[in-house]
Amino acid sequence: MLRNRNPGICGSDVHYWDHGRIGQFIVEEPMILGHESAGTVVEVGKNVTNLKPGDRVAIEPGYPCRYCRNCLAGRYNLCCNMVFAATPPYHGTLTGFWVAPYDFCYKLPQTVSLQEGALIEPLAVAVHIIKQAQVTPGNSVVIMGTGPVGLLCGAVAKAFGASKIVGVDIVQSKLEFAKELAFTHTYLSQRLSAEDNAAAILDKCDLGQGADVVIDASGAETSIQTSLHVVKTGGVYVQGGMGKADITFPIMAMCQKEVTAKGSFRYGPGDYELAIELVSSDRVPVKRLISDVVDFDQAEEAFKKVKRGQVVKILIAGPNEPGQAKPCLALDADS
Amino acid sequence: MLRNRNPGICGSDVHYWDHGRIGQFIVEEPMILGHESAGTVVEVGKNVTNLKPGDRVAIEPGYPCRYCRNCLAGRYNLCCNMVFAATPPYHGTLTGFWVAPYDFCYKLPQTVSLQEGALIEPLAVAVHIIKQAQVTPGNSVVIMGTGPVGLLCGAVAKAFGASKIVGVDIVQSKLEFAKELAFTHTYLSQRLSAEDNAAAILDKCDLGQGADVVIDASGAETSIQTSLHVVKTGGVYVQGGMGKADITFPIMAMCQKEVTAKGSFRYGPGDYELAIELVSSDRVPVKRLISDVVDFDQAEEAFKKVKRGQVVKILIAGPNEPGQAKPCLALDADS
Amino acid sequence: MLRNRNPGICGSDVHYWDHGRIGQFIVEEPMILGHESAGTVVEVGKNVTNLKPGDRVAIEPGYPCRYCRNCLAGRYNLCCNMVFAATPPYHGTLTGFWVAPYDFCYKLPQTVSLQEGALIEPLAVAVHIIKQAQVTPGNSVVIMGTGPVGLLCGAVAKAFGASKIVGVDIVQSKLEFAKELAFTHTYLSQRLSAEDNAAAILDKCDLGQGADVVIDASGAETSIQTSLHVVKTGGVYVQGGMGKADITFPIMAMCQKEVTAKGSFRYGPGDYELAIELVSSDRVPVKRLISDVVDFDQAEEAFKKVKRGQVVKILIAGPNEPGQAKPCLALDADS
Amino acid sequence: MLRNRNPGICGSDVHYWDHGRIGQFIVEEPMILGHESAGTVVEVGKNVTNLKPGDRVAIEPGYPCRYCRNCLAGRYNLCCNMVFAATPPYHGTLTGFWVAPYDFCYKLPQTVSLQEGALIEPLAVAVHIIKQAQVTPGNSVVIMGTGPVGLLCGAVAKAFGASKIVGVDIVQSKLEFAKELAFTHTYLSQRLSAEDNAAAILDKCDLGQGADVVIDASGAETSIQTSLHVVKTGGVYVQGGMGKADITFPIMAMCQKEVTAKGSFRYGPGDYELAIELVSSDRVPVKRLISDVVDFDQAEEAFKKVKRGQVVKILIAGPNEPGQAKPCLALDADS
Repeated sequence: MLRNRNPGICGSDVHYWDHGRIGQFIVEEPMILGHESAGTVVEVGKNVTNLKPGDRVAIEPGYPCRYCRNCLAGRYNLCCNMVFAATPPYHGTLTGFWVAPYDFCYKLPQTVSLQEGALIEPLAVAVHIIKQAQVTPGNSVVIMGTGPVGLLCGAVAKAFGASKIVGVDIVQSKLEFAKELAFTHTYLSQRLSAEDNAAAILDKCDLGQGADVVIDASGAETSIQTSLHVVKTGGVYVQGGMGKADITFPIMAMCQKEVTAKGSFRYGPGDYELAIELVSSDRVPVKRLISDVVDFDQAEEAFKKVKRGQVVKILIAGPNEPGQAKPCLALDADS
Repeated sequence: MLRNRNPGICGSDVHYWDHGRIGQFIVEEPMILGHESAGTVVEVGKNVTNLKPGDRVAIEPGYPCRYCRNCLAGRYNLCCNMVFAATPPYHGTLTGFWVAPYDFCYKLPQTVSLQEGALIEPLAVAVHIIKQAQVTPGNSVVIMGTGPVGLLCGAVAKAFGASKIVGVDIVQSKLEFAKELAFTHTYLSQRLSAEDNAAAILDKCDLGQGADVVIDASGAETSIQTSLHVVKTGGVYVQGGMGKADITFPIMAMCQKEVTAKGSFRYGPGDYELAIELVSSDRVPVKRLISDVVDFDQAEEAFKKVKRGQVVKILIAGPNEPGQAKPCLALDADS
Repeated sequence: MLRNRNPGICGSDVHYWDHGRIGQFIVEEPMILGHESAGTVVEVGKNVTNLKPGDRVAIEPGYPCRYCRNCLAGRYNLCCNMVFAATPPYHGTLTGFWVAPYDFCYKLPQTVSLQEGALIEPLAVAVHIIKQAQVTPGNSVVIMGTGPVGLLCGAVAKAFGASKIVGVDIVQSKLEFAKELAFTHTYLSQRLSAEDNAAAILDKCDLGQGADVVIDASGAETSIQTSLHVVKTGGVYVQGGMGKADITFPIMAMCQKEVTAKGSFRYGPGDYELAIELVSSDRVPVKRLISDVVDFDQAEEAFKKVKRGQVVKILIAGPNEPGQAKPCLALDADS
Repeated sequence: MLRNRNPGICGSDVHYWDHGRIGQFIVEEPMILGHESAGTVVEVGKNVTNLKPGDRVAIEPGYPCRYCRNCLAGRYNLCCNMVFAATPPYHGTLTGFWVAPYDFCYKLPQTVSLQEGALIEPLAVAVHIIKQAQVTPGNSVVIMGTGPVGLLCGAVAKAFGASKIVGVDIVQSKLEFAKELAFTHTYLSQRLSAEDNAAAILDKCDLGQGADVVIDASGAETSIQTSLHVVKTGGVYVQGGMGKADITFPIMAMCQKEVTAKGSFRYGPGDYELAIELVSSDRVPVKRLISDVVDFDQAEEAFKKVKRGQVVKILIAGPNEPGQAKPCLALDADS
C-alpha cells in the first residue's frame, strides 16, 4: 500500500477529463484520473523483501500480465493484457492509496523528493523515446514540440551525449525555457510548407544535410511532415506525441532516404530505473518543470490551466491523509 | 569492359520512358535506359585480379564515391555522390558495352545463365528489403503487391525461413503466379477500407493479432495504409515500392503499436552476392519470372507491354555485337 | 497436469547420474533426472484457456520468476531465480506426471509425435545457439562437435539459410550421419595444433579467409581453440557446449580479428515455438536422431549406452500409466 | 602535405623500438615510428575541397583499400589491405611531413590545439572500445588497467552516460589520477585469485551481481580472467588491450552467463569525428594526459621514460621545420 502524494497532471488526463476518450479508449463510467505519482509505502505483502513501510517510491502505473509473448520477449509495454492507471476501464492514481506490484515500485534515493518522484513517469516516457531513437554521443537531435515530453526528451538526449539539441515550437516562450533547460538551438516554426520549415531548420541550426535523429513530441501534422524532411539520409525519426489518427505523410522521403521510423509507447524494462538515476545524478533537472503545486480542492482549476497551456507541469498535493481511502495491500509476486 | 547481354526492363525504365522523370530525377537530354544487366568481360584494368576476359558477371549498376560518411559507414546505397545507371544525368546499361569497377562485377557460377544474371538486380532489391525487414525463421510476412519486386520478396522471405508468406494484390492471376512461386497464402484486395481489408487479411490468412513483418511492394496509398493495420504490435513494416510522394498515413497506428517502419532503397554490401547465391542454390527461381526475351529492335514494343502490365519481366537480347559501341575499359581500384 | 511420455536422455542427465554434479550444481539428495519431455495434458488450472485435457504438448522444463530484471528485459533464461528440471535442488521430468505453467507448455501440431515432442528441448537449445550466432542466409557456419546439439545446430543453421555448413568431429561415423542430416562439408579432426587444424578446415572446406560463424558444440579445449582460428575477421563465435571451466584460449585472435564471442545458455522467448515450427514444417528432421526407445526398466542400460556414446538420442517410454504418480495440477497465471 | 607536429608516443611504438616486433608484425628494416599525430596542411590535391593549406588537422594514420568486403560493409578497420603507419612494412608519422587521403584528415576546431590533436588517435581507440561495448546511460563500467587507453575509456564511458566507472590497476598513483579524471571508483588489485579479486571489486564498488560492462585495457592474463568474473550475467566484456596470444580463460563463465565478448581493433567510421567532438566540447580533457613535451633530439630518452611507465603521455615536438623532409602531396580521391 502506497500513500500517494503529489501526482502530476498529464495531457492525457486533461484529454480524458475534457473529451471523455482518447482514440479507442472511451470513458464509460466515472474514472479516477492520474498516472504520474510517487508515494510512501504503508504496507507490503508478506514475501516482499525489497520494500518496507516508510520507503519513498516512484510508481510505474501500468502492470503487464508477464505471460504473453510480448511480456516474455521483454516488451511489456506492448502487453495486450496491460492494466494501466487512468486508462479505461482502470482507475488512476489520483487517490489516497494505491496498490502496486513490488517490482513496479522504485525506491527513491534520499536526494530525490516525492515531487520529483511524481515526474519520473513523464521522464520515463522521454527515456523510452530516446532509447527508441538510439541516440548516441555526438548526435544531432531535433525535437518537434517543447511541451513537457519534448522538454524532457531534450534533457535526456543531452544525458545520452547528443551534441546538438534543437527545439522547434510555435511558442517563443517555450523555446526560451527549452534553451535554459538543455537545448543548444531553437527554431520558431513559421507559416511555411514542411519542406521550407525543414530547410530553414537545417540552415539556421547548422545541421548540414540533415539531423541524425528527429523526434516528434507534438503530434501535430505539420510537425510530423517537417520531421521527415529534417532527418538525414539513413537517420532515425521517432513518433512520441499523440495526435490525429491519420495524417498526410511524406512516405517517399522515408523510403528514399532509408529512414528508420519508430513509434514509442509508454516505457519498458529499465526506463524507470534510468529516469530515477538521471534525476538523482543531476543530469535531468525535472524539478524545474514544476510550475505549481496545488491542493486537491483546486484540482479542477489546475486541469483548466494545463488545458490552456499556461504551465509546464502542475502537481496536486493530496488527498493523502490516512483514512481517506480504503487501505489496500501491495501485491507481491506470489500473493 | 563488359559485353552486355539480355538486360531486363524495370518499372523505373518504363517510367522514365513514359514520363521523363521520377520524382526529383528529371531526364533533360537523351538518356540510355537500363540497369538490370549481366554480361561477359571483354577487357580488364591492369591491376584487376578477380576478373578476366570471358568471365560472365552480374553488374551492380550504381557506383558510390567510397569517401563520404555513408560509404565509410557501410551504407553505400545512401552515398550522395552515387553514379547510378539510367538515373539522370547518367546513361543506363541498355548499350553494347559497359564499364564498371571490378568489385561491382560479380562472377556468375556456371549454373547461372546470363539471363538469370540480368535478374540479379531486382533480386538484390528484394534481398535488401528482406534484410531491412529483419525477417527470421518462423516469421509471418505479408507482401502488398505481387509485381516483380513483390514476387521476389516472397521468394527471398522463404529463403530467410519465413513460415507464412502472404501475397496481396488486386489482380487474381498475379496471385496465382505468386502461389506457384513461393507464397503460402494470397488475398485479393477488396473495395474496402484499409482497416477492413487488414482485418480480412488477418482473418483469412490465420495471422492472429497481426503479421510479424509487412512489406509494401506496391507504392499504392491504400496498400500502405493496410500495411500499418496488418502489422502486429511491435512488428516491422518496410516501404519497398515507389509511389506518390505524400499519402494519408495511419501515424497513430505506427506510434501506439510501436511499429518499426523503414524505407528500403536499392541495395548495399553483400546484397548482390546473396542474390547470386540464392539463384545458384535454387532457392529463388528467378528464371520463372522471365516472360519473354526480345530482340533490341522490338524494345519499344517490350516497353509498351511492361507498361500495360502484361508481363512479369521481359529481357532484351543485344545490341551485343562487338563494334556496335565504343569499347571501354573496366575501371580498377587505382586507375 | 501432464502425463509425461518418452523423455529423452541428455548428456547432462548422464553427467549428474555419473558424477553427481555439473560445475556449481551439486546433487545432494536423490534427484529425479530428465528435462527433455513431452506429454498429454490431464488437468488444467481454472483460468487456463489455451490448453485442455487431451492436448499433446512439449514441455519447457525451466520456469523463471517473471519479476527480476532479466525476466522483465526478455532474457528469462538468465533469471537468477530459475526453477529448472533436474538441476539441483529441483527434480526432473523423468516421472509419471509433471506440473508446468500454461505458457511453458507448447501444443504440438497433429503432424508432430510425442517422441518428436521430447526432442523439442535439445532442438530449442540449438535454435538459441543459432540465434545467438545471428546466422543469416548465405553464411558459412562451422560446427565443432557433431553430438546431438551439434547435429541440431547444423540442421537449424540450414533452416536459417546458411549456405555452407561444416561439421568437425573426431569420430568419422558421426560425420557421416551429419552429412546425411544437413551438413554440406565435414572434417575429421587431426592430431595437429589448433592453428593447423583450422588452416586445414579453411582449405578443405573452401572457406577462404574464415567462416562467418563458428559454433563450438563440443566443449573440448582444442575445439574451442580451433574455433577462434577458423572464424573470419569480424565473424561470430558462439560457445554452446559445456566443458572445463578454464582453458587455454587464443585471446589475441579474438581481439585483433574483432570477433564477437558469445555464450549460449538454454533457451529463451520464442525458441520453443520456433523449434516446433521447424519440426512440423519438415525443416528439421528430429526423428532421425532417435536411436532407440526403451522401457523405463531399461533406463539404466540406456544411460550407460549414452555415456559410451553409442547412440545419438535414446528415449525412455513411461512410467506413464495413470496412478503411478501423484496427480497434480497445471499451474495457471493466478493460481 | 601535412606539416607534422607534436606526435605522441604509444606503447606499440615503444614495443617496436624495444622488441622489433608485435605479434605477427616484424620490423625487418629501419622503420620510422609514430602514429599519433596532428599537423598543419601544407598542400592539397587539386580535387580536395574540404581542406586548404593552413588548416590544422588530426591524422587518422591507417588507410583502408575501400574495395574489399570489410571496407564496403563499414568495417574498414578490418580491411585486409590496410596501410597503417608504423606497422611494418609501413613507416610511421614521426617525420617532418606526412601524406594522407583527404577524408582521413579531420579539421580541428579553434579550441583544440595541435597537442590535443595528437591525442585524438588514442582517444579514437577508446571511443571504438566503448562503442563496441555499447555503453549506455546508467551502465556500470569496470575498466581493467588505467594506462592511457584505460584512462581514456573511463572518460569516454562517462561521456556515454555511464553512472559508475570503476578503475582497476596495480599502481595506486595511476588510480588516483583516474579518479581525478573521470572514474567514480577505483580498486587496487590484490594478490588474489581472479574470482576473489572479482568478488572484492563487486563488493567494494557496490556493483551487486556484476558490472554491465567490463573492459580489459591491460592485456594482462589475470585482469582478463577477473573481467569475466566481474561482468554480470548477460553483460558485455571487451578486450581492448594487447598482451599474450594465449591465456588461461574462464570459458564456462562466459558461456553460462551468456556474456557477449568482443575484440576491439583500432577505430572505424565516425570514431575520429566523435573523439574530436568530445575534446572540443570539454567532455574528455585529453590535455591532462600530456605528461611532457620534448624536442625531437630527446626522443630516445622519452621512449625510455614511457617504457619505464613514468609518464602517461609524452609528445615529441618536431622535426617540423620546412625543408627537413621531402615535401609531398596530400592524396585526393581521384589522384
